[in-house]
Amino acid sequence: MSFNKIFKADSVAIIGASKNETKRGYQAIKTLLDEKYEGSIYPVNLKENTILGLKCYRSVLDIPENIDLALLTTPPHTVKKILRECGEKGVAGVVVIAGGFGELGEKGRRLEEEIVGIAREKGIRIIGPNTSGMISVNKGLNLVGLKNVPHGPIALLTQSGNIALTLITEAGLKSQMGFNYYVGVGNEADIKFHEYLEYFTKDPETRVILMYVEGLREGRKFLQQASRTTQVKPIVLLKSGRSAKGSKSAGSHTGALAGISEVASTAFRKAGIINVEHSDEMFPIAESLASLPLINESSIAILADGGGHATIAADYLTDLGIKLPELEKETRDKLAAILPANASLSNPIDVAGGTDENPAIFADCAEILLSDKNIHGLLIVGLFGGYGIRFAKKLAFMEEDAAHRMGKLVSISRKPIVLHSLFNYAKPHSLDLLRYYNIPVYDSLEIACKCVEALSIYGSYFREYHKESNFHLNWGAKAVREGQEIINKALAEGRNALLEHEAKELLRLQGASVSIDRLAHNEDEAVQIAEELGYNVAMKIVSPHILHKSDAGGVKLKLKNEKDVREAFNKIIKNAGEYRPGADIKGCIVSRMAAEGIEVIIGTKIDDQFGPIVMFGLGGILVEVMKDVSFRVLPVSQYWAASMIDEIKSALILDGVRGGPPSDKKAIAELIEKVSEIIEAYPAIHEMDLNPVIVHEEGLTIVDARIILSKENIEKKKRLSLSLDETKTDEN
Amino acid sequence: MSFNKIFKADSVAIIGASKNETKRGYQAIKTLLDEKYEGSIYPVNLKENTILGLKCYRSVLDIPENIDLALLTTPPHTVKKILRECGEKGVAGVVVIAGGFGELGEKGRRLEEEIVGIAREKGIRIIGPNTSGMISVNKGLNLVGLKNVPHGPIALLTQSGNIALTLITEAGLKSQMGFNYYVGVGNEADIKFHEYLEYFTKDPETRVILMYVEGLREGRKFLQQASRTTQVKPIVLLKSGRSAKGSKSAGSHTGALAGISEVASTAFRKAGIINVEHSDEMFPIAESLASLPLINESSIAILADGGGHATIAADYLTDLGIKLPELEKETRDKLAAILPANASLSNPIDVAGGTDENPAIFADCAEILLSDKNIHGLLIVGLFGGYGIRFAKKLAFMEEDAAHRMGKLVSISRKPIVLHSLFNYAKPHSLDLLRYYNIPVYDSLEIACKCVEALSIYGSYFREYHKESNFHLNWGAKAVREGQEIINKALAEGRNALLEHEAKELLRLQGASVSIDRLAHNEDEAVQIAEELGYNVAMKIVSPHILHKSDAGGVKLKLKNEKDVREAFNKIIKNAGEYRPGADIKGCIVSRMAAEGIEVIIGTKIDDQFGPIVMFGLGGILVEVMKDVSFRVLPVSQYWAASMIDEIKSALILDGVRGGPPSDKKAIAELIEKVSEIIEAYPAIHEMDLNPVIVHEEGLTIVDARIILSKENIEKKKRLSLSLDETKTDEN
Repeated sequence: MSFNKIFKADSVAIIGASKNETKRGYQAIKTLLDEKYEGSIYPVNLKENTILGLKCYRSVLDIPENIDLALLTTPPHTVKKILRECGEKGVAGVVVIAGGFGELGEKGRRLEEEIVGIAREKGIRIIGPNTSGMISVNKGLNLVGLKNVPHGPIALLTQSGNIALTLITEAGLKSQMGFNYYVGVGNEADIKFHEYLEYFTKDPETRVILMYVEGLREGRKFLQQASRTTQVKPIVLLKSGRSAKGSKSAGSHTGALAGISEVASTAFRKAGIINVEHSDEMFPIAESLASLPLINESSIAILADGGGHATIAADYLTDLGIKLPELEKETRDKLAAILPANASLSNPIDVAGGTDENPAIFADCAEILLSDKNIHGLLIVGLFGGYGIRFAKKLAFMEEDAAHRMGKLVSISRKPIVLHSLFNYAKPHSLDLLRYYNIPVYDSLEIACKCVEALSIYGSYFREYHKESNFHLNWGAKAVREGQEIINKALAEGRNALLEHEAKELLRLQGASVSIDRLAHNEDEAVQIAEELGYNVAMKIVSPHILHKSDAGGVKLKLKNEKDVREAFNKIIKNAGEYRPGADIKGCIVSRMAAEGIEVIIGTKIDDQFGPIVMFGLGGILVEVMKDVSFRVLPVSQYWAASMIDEIKSALILDGVRGGPPSDKKAIAELIEKVSEIIEAYPAIHEMDLNPVIVHEEGLTIVDARIILSKENIEKKKRLSLSLDETKTDEN
Repeated sequence: MSFNKIFKADSVAIIGASKNETKRGYQAIKTLLDEKYEGSIYPVNLKENTILGLKCYRSVLDIPENIDLALLTTPPHTVKKILRECGEKGVAGVVVIAGGFGELGEKGRRLEEEIVGIAREKGIRIIGPNTSGMISVNKGLNLVGLKNVPHGPIALLTQSGNIALTLITEAGLKSQMGFNYYVGVGNEADIKFHEYLEYFTKDPETRVILMYVEGLREGRKFLQQASRTTQVKPIVLLKSGRSAKGSKSAGSHTGALAGISEVASTAFRKAGIINVEHSDEMFPIAESLASLPLINESSIAILADGGGHATIAADYLTDLGIKLPELEKETRDKLAAILPANASLSNPIDVAGGTDENPAIFADCAEILLSDKNIHGLLIVGLFGGYGIRFAKKLAFMEEDAAHRMGKLVSISRKPIVLHSLFNYAKPHSLDLLRYYNIPVYDSLEIACKCVEALSIYGSYFREYHKESNFHLNWGAKAVREGQEIINKALAEGRNALLEHEAKELLRLQGASVSIDRLAHNEDEAVQIAEELGYNVAMKIVSPHILHKSDAGGVKLKLKNEKDVREAFNKIIKNAGEYRPGADIKGCIVSRMAAEGIEVIIGTKIDDQFGPIVMFGLGGILVEVMKDVSFRVLPVSQYWAASMIDEIKSALILDGVRGGPPSDKKAIAELIEKVSEIIEAYPAIHEMDLNPVIVHEEGLTIVDARIILSKENIEKKKRLSLSLDETKTDEN
């Protein structure tokens, strides 16, 4: 990828340069000069001779040197022509500021496609259009006109210029942390999120990637790249556009498709991404991840100088799944030696006035706590930083001493300290010192807790599940010949669904436990099959024209003898004929009634952003009314399948209720994995619905299965599911 | 109440006064002098002659003038003696700083009871012990040693000195809003939360009461006072200690489901209190409520200068239940006239650069939006306040113009404006101006949204439900003679539970729909009853020694003929004898099987903080596994009963599922109200459990009922449930 030519460009043309101070074409040049851009600047303007002392050119083609990057500040209708010129000139990248493309709907979308076509043809990569621009901070390459961007190791990638402005402003005012890159992805017309991500992943200066996303153009590739990125460095991401109003708002300004948030957030989690819910947590979490060692075992201690803060922090961390282990005896003894008798030595630790006359004792406590083998991080809450303000000036020096010691302690112990200080806003020197040592400080107790959570989530990621993440679909790999024949036959007959016995046969061929059943073409065959299988049995209509068998009166259960079977067969055929006159009726399938168990549902569908996904839930009202379901982007291994089972609120039911036996959760996880394999194996399968699956104490039975086919969707699905490496092969 | 003598004290004795600058006994005097306390200060010290130029006395008894209030900074063991002296002197109130009382457990609790005893005897009221003190800001009566408390209309009542310090510091640094009172309630040994609340409710200077609570000594009285207070002014409350107390589960079946915090938060809501979840939202929400008109119809507009902020705000407000109505045509037309063509005129409104050259247009938009009849408030998000910083200096003056106009607009329209500004932290003058006009500004978008939510919740409170709030239990009022006789008979027999048929008879007497059933003493009677009721029937064991009838094999359902009934009767009696040899077996009750319907559960228990509460949920796994239940503190009217039904997640099931009919929700609400009346009517009832109740399309049937009695608990329960007015009668 030639992104180095873009982000490390040695020469920039400002096309649409201006002498008018309110214009972007002026501000861009001014900012490049002010920020001491290391390369050459070439204003392009039809009339002016010089702008800000720089010689102007009539066209990019007139510039005597090579141009790596061009900034286009001109209106949308000029873009095509200029792009062609840039192509001729050999420009590597173009930043298109103008709006008026995909975000305006159909007409703009056509123009957008045209400019992407030109770029492809000419070998140019486009940032935007409809973007606030990009900044390569260390290079002084600032095409946003936003000055004083604080330097640091965070790469910022957003779909909203104002969110970028918020984060950059916040960093400058509240922290000593900053950014090395900013990209406003705009309409993502050419360069996509995952491509920027790949560049930042390889960039050694970048420690954290911070993202604001309203919608993804290529969700599947994004997940693949993200799961590679998070092996190396964290991604912190806020996804908005969840609500109807929010998604409409997102659509109107980026033209992005706002997605199913539930699918997205679990997909992001599977890719190792830190999902942020609130915008005021974005920068703090990125700052903490860029500054501190990670937390192991989700276990920390709280150190407080007042009961209230300790209680609130303990409540909230418990909600967030962070453990507050009891201290070892040695730790307690050491703390007891330096704290007053009424101090609470149980986690959370309350110094109970023990720091009032010497806040440097915080550092002593921190040293003691972080050498406890069960404690993997420390959250200090309360007044630290304010002792000098609140009590006596000399205490400020003791706080500074503590800051130096705690700063070094984090480096030595490789365990993080996060600080909440109610005096943060007053900017005491001791808190600046802590930040110098990469210990972040927050005035919101809750945000400090969320940073602890993020350090813990990313800490667990490596320990627990990063090897299990995979977003690559290996189409057709595990198909069997007989399975493919079943599908081919249905497609050849012009059907878009398998019949129930075909679907089950396919499942059986792939090794899934389906109910034992066979197709009876007439009453006598039904009796014969029932007697071979053994009573009692169920019978269901088989017809390509009847999908909803119960509605058609096409299902009879618990048939106990020959008489029942004969009556049921005739009744079903009669009902079906009345329900859908002229339907092609193949007969009935006869199944042995499944053993007792808990009903679950496993289904798959195609998500517009991420391609194939799988859904799991418990049968009946829990899915239908309570919507208690979990999703994963395919493929899923048993690890992720098991996590889907644990994730639903009703999962406890599978452990056995009212003295009943537990259900075989391992068998469910295996089946979900198998469903994932089947979707990969047969690209023609559009949707599967196993409902119900009856889970027993040992094993399970798929009682009904619906498989929908779609020739038309194969290409769309493959496109949605295209892996990064495949794309590259295509492009090479 | 003599609280005026405390909060408006004209003279204060500092007992334990000191010349040592690090001591509380010095700081208190210094602070009173610095804050220009309007009354007289009398240091009490055994050795010194003067402190800070004030004459010292050896004892409070030596002081020549009357003393309204005394601050005790001496150790716990001295408190009893000093209190007696204060009593002799006629001191109205004493603030006891020392810890070492109830918070230390049994021993401290005894000392605490002793000092409360002395106070009662001497007619003294105690703030504390174990308190940070109190401040009456306008009077300069500052007994906390915390200087520069910003003045304002918020009364602060907390159980943690550090939380008070946090809030006061935050107010000083981030707002122009402040406090008129602060009380650290400490151990709440004498004066309780509800008494402070009553005082602040009557105090004309107080507009909002802000509270931090870890536990309530007298929860029921607190709720009663709170529901009176919230008729007049808002209470903003954060309750912590969830995680510690969450594990405390009660013994009985429904009780085990009761989460204390869940009970508390719904109780607070019923009392009209604004529950705050996060400590960083406490001050902003109090500030907004003290500053702004309330929001009607939960309907506002969002005005943004960037898509990202608009999208995030729309998502979050939707989560919070705030509606973003579409604008009227006239409103859209007026906006279109002043905004660029690409502005989004759908709510959320995005000015799309329309304010870039003149941010005063924000005020024009605000005027247009607030005159829309469907819009009852405005949230402005984004850059306002930063145009002068970000773009050009002269824009700052336009922002100031807008601030003046928006400030006046709020007064005129009586609709609030809440502002989010990412430049808040940079403290531009325009944002100070907005605060001058009582428009609060936040740098957290999410906190700004939470303020909108609070203005809306308190706005709805008056419109929707304040008249329905009632925490007064009218013991015995609605009892009937026959009902009382059933209970008396059981108690006389030494039983602590009613038999099923007794419980049902009691319910029937109070007008509830119980299943039709009668007690059969033998097999023949069972057949006779079954034939009178009509088949099919259910039969259940009746024995004071068997509470869990199913476990004892004591339940048989769907008996369809005489043979079934005879077999079942004998089997039940045999099972019961084996399950509990020697049990007193009264026979079986025979009931007609209830008609089809949805199973629900209604239960009551005694909450340790609030007294009698009621629980509602849907039968089976939804209660047992999903814990999908709602609680209310009794008594409940049908209004609150209906809200309990709507509150559970599975409530949709009652509207009918899978084409089934809807259930009679009105009948459930009536039954919950009736249960509430029965608990009031018969104080000997400790717990009730109606499980299951089968709800039909019309009406319902109570199929099983358990009523637990407790003579011992009557007094405790009455005490927990004592109403404010009763207390006063007691004390008079």
